[in-house]
Amino acid sequence: METKDVIVNVGLKKGISDPEGNNIKKALRLLGFDEVEEVHVNKYFKITIKASDEDKAKERVREMAEKLLTNPVIHDYEIRW
Amino acid sequence: METKDVIVNVGLKKGISDPEGNNIKKALRLLGFDEVEEVHVNKYFKITIKASDEDKAKERVREMAEKLLTNPVIHDYEIRW
Repeated sequence: METKDVIVNVGLKKGISDPEGNNIKKALRLLGFDEVEEVHVNKYFKITIKASDEDKAKERVREMAEKLLTNPVIHDYEIRW
Repeated sequence: METKDVIVNVGLKKGISDPEGNNIKKALRLLGFDEVEEVHVNKYFKITIKASDEDKAKERVREMAEKLLTNPVIHDYEIRW
């Protein structure tokens, strides 16, 4: 069975505050990078799966994202195949 | 002056162990996702900067990555413009 790398991109929903991003912005400014306007920090998961049926595998990765990788209250996610 | 979003992608160098990824792999397997072979967790920063000169701005983002966003001992990074 072939394996496939799938990327799950997880970011904060619009309007959810991003304290890590804000602190990095402050730190960059303190270091003299005055051109920085905004910083957002996101995570992405590279998941290697055994997949034969592409549609089924996509559905499974969606389940992984919803059950474990993200918190649907605060996160948006995107699956890149 | 126009603003520009730059993505800095930070991952662990090859050979550096990724305990977060390993634990997520274990958790996914426990949840019944037996098709998961490998999980890697990476971070990416979306940085909005004021930029007029593209070449200079790129050089500045490279400096940000090296001074603050990454640890050169364990991380590889990639800048997507």
